Amino acid sequence: MNQAAITILQQALGEKLSQNAAVCDHHSHDMSRQPPHLPDAVVFAETEDDVVRTVALCHQHGLPVVPFGAGSSMEGHTIPIRGGISLNMTRMNRILAVHPQDFDAVVEAGVTRKQLNEHLRDMGLMFPVDPGADASLGGMASTRASGTTAVRYGTMRENVIALRVVTPSGQIITTGRRVKKSSTGYDLTKIFVGAEGTLGVITQVTVRLQPVPDVIASAICSFATMRGAVETVVETLQSGIPVARIEFLDEVAVDAANAHANLGLKRQPTLFLEFHGSARWVEEQSETVRSLAAENGGADFDWATRTEDRARLWKARHETIYSNQSLRPGCKTYTTDVCVPVSRLPEAILAARADLDASFITGKIIGHVGDGNFHVGYLIKPEIPAELAEAERLAERLYQRTMDMEGTFSGEHGVGISKLKYLRREHGEAVELMKALKSAFDPKGIMNPGKLGHEG
Amino acid sequence: MNQAAITILQQALGEKLSQNAAVCDHHSHDMSRQPPHLPDAVVFAETEDDVVRTVALCHQHGLPVVPFGAGSSMEGHTIPIRGGISLNMTRMNRILAVHPQDFDAVVEAGVTRKQLNEHLRDMGLMFPVDPGADASLGGMASTRASGTTAVRYGTMRENVIALRVVTPSGQIITTGRRVKKSSTGYDLTKIFVGAEGTLGVITQVTVRLQPVPDVIASAICSFATMRGAVETVVETLQSGIPVARIEFLDEVAVDAANAHANLGLKRQPTLFLEFHGSARWVEEQSETVRSLAAENGGADFDWATRTEDRARLWKARHETIYSNQSLRPGCKTYTTDVCVPVSRLPEAILAARADLDASFITGKIIGHVGDGNFHVGYLIKPEIPAELAEAERLAERLYQRTMDMEGTFSGEHGVGISKLKYLRREHGEAVELMKALKSAFDPKGIMNPGKLGHEG
Repeated sequence: MNQAAITILQQALGEKLSQNAAVCDHHSHDMSRQPPHLPDAVVFAETEDDVVRTVALCHQHGLPVVPFGAGSSMEGHTIPIRGGISLNMTRMNRILAVHPQDFDAVVEAGVTRKQLNEHLRDMGLMFPVDPGADASLGGMASTRASGTTAVRYGTMRENVIALRVVTPSGQIITTGRRVKKSSTGYDLTKIFVGAEGTLGVITQVTVRLQPVPDVIASAICSFATMRGAVETVVETLQSGIPVARIEFLDEVAVDAANAHANLGLKRQPTLFLEFHGSARWVEEQSETVRSLAAENGGADFDWATRTEDRARLWKARHETIYSNQSLRPGCKTYTTDVCVPVSRLPEAILAARADLDASFITGKIIGHVGDGNFHVGYLIKPEIPAELAEAERLAERLYQRTMDMEGTFSGEHGVGISKLKYLRREHGEAVELMKALKSAFDPKGIMNPGKLGHEG
Repeated sequence: MNQAAITILQQALGEKLSQNAAVCDHHSHDMSRQPPHLPDAVVFAETEDDVVRTVALCHQHGLPVVPFGAGSSMEGHTIPIRGGISLNMTRMNRILAVHPQDFDAVVEAGVTRKQLNEHLRDMGLMFPVDPGADASLGGMASTRASGTTAVRYGTMRENVIALRVVTPSGQIITTGRRVKKSSTGYDLTKIFVGAEGTLGVITQVTVRLQPVPDVIASAICSFATMRGAVETVVETLQSGIPVARIEFLDEVAVDAANAHANLGLKRQPTLFLEFHGSARWVEEQSETVRSLAAENGGADFDWATRTEDRARLWKARHETIYSNQSLRPGCKTYTTDVCVPVSRLPEAILAARADLDASFITGKIIGHVGDGNFHVGYLIKPEIPAELAEAERLAERLYQRTMDMEGTFSGEHGVGISKLKYLRREHGEAVELMKALKSAFDPKGIMNPGKLGHEG
């Protein structure tokens, strides 16, 4: 049935549409542990007009459309679980405008964050949102992504100023103007940020930029206890210091970072910190945090001020997720993503650790703790049913405890597929409004069907 | 017809419902120049249950519901133009919780910003959003309000963490958790922020708080030229200084401030500035801005560091809107509200001034220029048709020019009634999505009908 529609699409798009087996396979999965599913075809959009033609024809024929960026989703967002078209946006990777005086840039949705920062390098500007993966900005917007710098610069929620979107019926709209604030109507930008490709296809993103600080100083501090590390985070935030990054790694995560990047860190709960500002201001911030750390059993700061040392440090932090082989050959990380009010952070992390200590599987805890956001990664061999079941049991405990602490079941990875079942537990009757929104914007249900806008 | 439904409501709510003429008259207008319209009755909600019962019965009987807070709207938001119930929220003014460790507070929608700050005074915390009027937090959320401090702390868009809302069918929902970030579904919080009471009734607001800075220093700086003042703003922002307030007043606005508060300022384009931070950090920020100002023809800073001097200064700034009598006895201010990309600010303000200089009416320009937001206030006697027509002609030019500069026709006052006609000019086809959202959330159209969700 779909094939007739695809033939029509192929006539319209020519070689931009592929049904090659390897291409379809590449678009059948992402970085999550969700089972793959093949699309019927892949469209490589090169222009907004390609997107319009694809979506309009899919709308006409009732064919699913699943936008695909870098494929770095952690929750199955881009898996076309009902087939249809995987709409690859990576060829739409032009940087359309940079406005240095306004601190914004307008880019096509396929531009990645590293590509943008490379482009900005000589302009004294940076795009700060850093989820680790070199994700596309369209994908980051759709996931409401964040990462290590959100504590200072916010998430995609705060950093997307406006979008161009192709609606499910194939119309091009803009969701806002290139201004710092506006009170002219419902906030369509914020509706599409975090919508996970279920309401339309983002084709352009206008993002906020930041001046590159005069001084960037990174430090590592190890602690005698996990509580000491986490209390230092809470007290740092309470003192109003605009720390640029404050990341927590437990002992197992330190092992992973050491093994992966040969960092030689002490096997203790550890904070990775970064300060941005003028020389004097960075000195003042770091002195305050150092004394807070010392009061909580922290060792002296180990500084990395050279660019290459800082790069190595943050690379190690980001790649802890890939560094499992050294911890347990053949294992994979079953990743979670929770966020609690900062005051509940010590209790939340200690409880997660206690669950791990009481289990026959092990795991690591890392977190963007300045936001109350952390990830417990269970190190399992998923082909062993008992291990997978245990990870799922622990994750269920973690998510329920998080929600009981006024927390959220995703700080930054999004809902995707398997966490749809938590939507009603967290949002209650508000889920009905989400469904109403989905039906209003996408009445034929062609945009990334079976994901957000539904329940699991 | 409505009276039958109101009788049923009265049976449910007793003395909380009033049809007293003076009460209805008070709810027929706001601070805008929109013509008044009487509600059929006013309900003074004391509890969320009162709101639920009111909305549910109105839903059943098709009666309009118009939420009413402090009545400080500048654009007619709270005028019940189709009659029905004016739902007064001011008795729901309990501060439910303050979480100092998490920097948030949970309040009922009728709590005003001054009431909240009074409550926080001894806790070292503040709620920074400052639109001038002592508005209710429910109203500020609904208008996506901001004001003098948005350049540093953001608008209500950034400062509302979560809401409780009674939906148009009378259901209670919560739009999010008390966390710094979340990626779990469509951003319902941001849908209700700025919805102008057209999608439901906000009953509780969870807002972000800030630590009171160690040092708050205010300064006044006058400039030889308007361009010099505005260029100083642009350069200050470009240098990345987190100025807490940076407000522009033209000569006529300085006259108004002088007349109203006896400030004795020089009759020149003037910036009011404020710096927040540690003593060292404030010194560093203000030194940088002072040297930028000097290069642009600015005089030396006139400092106000004592609390009472600062209070007098900002009161004068806020009350320029009321200080027309001294400028021209019997006149009123026809206020506008535009926002452009900061790079376009000099051009935008100079063009607005040129329009005034070429007209037979006069006016003043004040602005939250750190956001690119400014207000041209035409000083007219609206009962003189030629003056009103001239103000409308100039406002139309101002709004169109703003949109031509990638700007927005409201930075902070909202759409209300008379600016509905600009929605399509700014948002184009996206207006159709706004209508779809309104229909999906309020299919019977009872919430503040004739406002947002419609076109003018």
